[in-house]
Amino acid sequence: MQIQFLGTGAGMPSKLRNTSSIALKLLEECGKIWLFDCGEATQHQILHTTIKPGKINKLFITHLHGDHIFGLPGFLSSRSFLGGNDPLTIYGPKGLEEWVRMTLNVTKTHLTYELHFVEVTEGLLFEDDQFQVYVRQLEHVIPCYGYRIVQKDLPGKLDVEKARQLGVPNGPLLGRLKNGFDVQLENGEVISSEQVVSEPIKGFIVTILGDTRYCEAAIDLAKDADVVIHEATFDEDTTELAAIYGHATNEEAARVAREAGAKQLFMNHISARFLSHDLQRLVQHARETFAESYIVNDFEQYAWRNQTCQLVEKEE
Amino acid sequence: MQIQFLGTGAGMPSKLRNTSSIALKLLEECGKIWLFDCGEATQHQILHTTIKPGKINKLFITHLHGDHIFGLPGFLSSRSFLGGNDPLTIYGPKGLEEWVRMTLNVTKTHLTYELHFVEVTEGLLFEDDQFQVYVRQLEHVIPCYGYRIVQKDLPGKLDVEKARQLGVPNGPLLGRLKNGFDVQLENGEVISSEQVVSEPIKGFIVTILGDTRYCEAAIDLAKDADVVIHEATFDEDTTELAAIYGHATNEEAARVAREAGAKQLFMNHISARFLSHDLQRLVQHARETFAESYIVNDFEQYAWRNQTCQLVEKEE
Repeated sequence: MQIQFLGTGAGMPSKLRNTSSIALKLLEECGKIWLFDCGEATQHQILHTTIKPGKINKLFITHLHGDHIFGLPGFLSSRSFLGGNDPLTIYGPKGLEEWVRMTLNVTKTHLTYELHFVEVTEGLLFEDDQFQVYVRQLEHVIPCYGYRIVQKDLPGKLDVEKARQLGVPNGPLLGRLKNGFDVQLENGEVISSEQVVSEPIKGFIVTILGDTRYCEAAIDLAKDADVVIHEATFDEDTTELAAIYGHATNEEAARVAREAGAKQLFMNHISARFLSHDLQRLVQHARETFAESYIVNDFEQYAWRNQTCQLVEKEE
Repeated sequence: MQIQFLGTGAGMPSKLRNTSSIALKLLEECGKIWLFDCGEATQHQILHTTIKPGKINKLFITHLHGDHIFGLPGFLSSRSFLGGNDPLTIYGPKGLEEWVRMTLNVTKTHLTYELHFVEVTEGLLFEDDQFQVYVRQLEHVIPCYGYRIVQKDLPGKLDVEKARQLGVPNGPLLGRLKNGFDVQLENGEVISSEQVVSEPIKGFIVTILGDTRYCEAAIDLAKDADVVIHEATFDEDTTELAAIYGHATNEEAARVAREAGAKQLFMNHISARFLSHDLQRLVQHARETFAESYIVNDFEQYAWRNQTCQLVEKEE
């Protein structure tokens, strides 16, 4: 799993930060990429990455403000132009489907793939063999949703050397042990899966929040998460503005991460009013509340390795 | 007058060319900028220029394909965010207003300025003291319009030295002569305006076409134009495709310029399939039909000086 930030700015694009979009790359897990929000020029940002639009099979929209959706029609259109044939499902608030379909109709855009919509409501939104996605409504000036992506635990690792020592021959018995079954050897001895397979490997929990005030729903979604991505549009000097405009400060984002018992906090939706030296101050201030706080930047990519997300690359 | 190309690509953005947009800068003439088409990320392109969104008071849309309008909602929104208060008028095909208003409504975008729409039909679309804008429908797969912008002739230049020699004193009489009136001196002698003021200075004619096949309407709009901006999506090897998809080749663009008796041809809407060496070939080939043919690039700016448009700057 890798998380790549395609747009980390607030409200309007700037030269440094585009409007909102995050790619959750699940290429190793299921060969797919999920996109969260799609601000204008998200497809332009993608041109500077290794992301293939055809690999994106799910798109989650937090809310209907323009800086989170104005890149959607262009992305859908180009995904088609580039020959994407796999179906795409868009999860988002009420009103999204009507707008997208009207826009495609007005512009006579005929997609080469099936487009499905799922109107989000609170609770379990999606589940398959590998993942669950939960939703809660946050506190913004219009309906806005946060997503909690839970990877189901993976089978433990088979200790092949130990199995051999216990007399298990190469072949199908090893596979059965790995899949949790006990096996009987030719000599009648029974080897249990537990003897040679480690505990299940804990899956990751990534929480991706939309625009929001500090709120209980965010803490709930971020409970024990490995990574929480929380907006930090304002700072301590502008806490009142944050409340009025339905946004959060750096300190509030850190408070959510701490109260949720999360492991890492990535702050995005950064206002262009903050300059480079402000950002250092914002991070430092957040770390007083939650040590593992980071401000993320466009094109940064974090990879899930050894149960933690590490900055691996800055593509551009 | 300056013409700056903000997006010269076809269909989809590439790293080199954005989707369609052209700025006609009339800052010296009337302090305003007119925008023609507004593909996705036009506002991002503007960030790399000296253009102030608030100076743009007219926006002309050629047709409703996404690569010509998907930047419109974001541009309108950011123009408001940046404190633009001057009214903005959008000229475009039927259906544009409904889509824009629905989009602003869905995203709860409240503009700080008045937004007016004019649905284009063939003929004289706009006229004021300085300019006329004419429209013709072109030949594309959906209704698509071309615009002919005519600057009215400017008053001739007053030869102050000659006026003095003829006995005209400094003061209001000079102004009356410049404005075309004859004046009587104190000695009773009559000096005519024609004696001291040169012929009116011819205004420019700029023709900005949308996506189109080679067609008579384009030639009509480009008649005696100083500059024709014509798409060249295809080349001589793909002439049949051009016809099917409602586009033109480089040679057809050149033919329009020649048959119209235009002075300069700027070719845009260039497909990403053409590489750098292809472009040289495309230009050379066009010049066999019309010598003053050019392929334009994103951010290039041409200025109207001494009755011709000259490349002055590549901003970025």
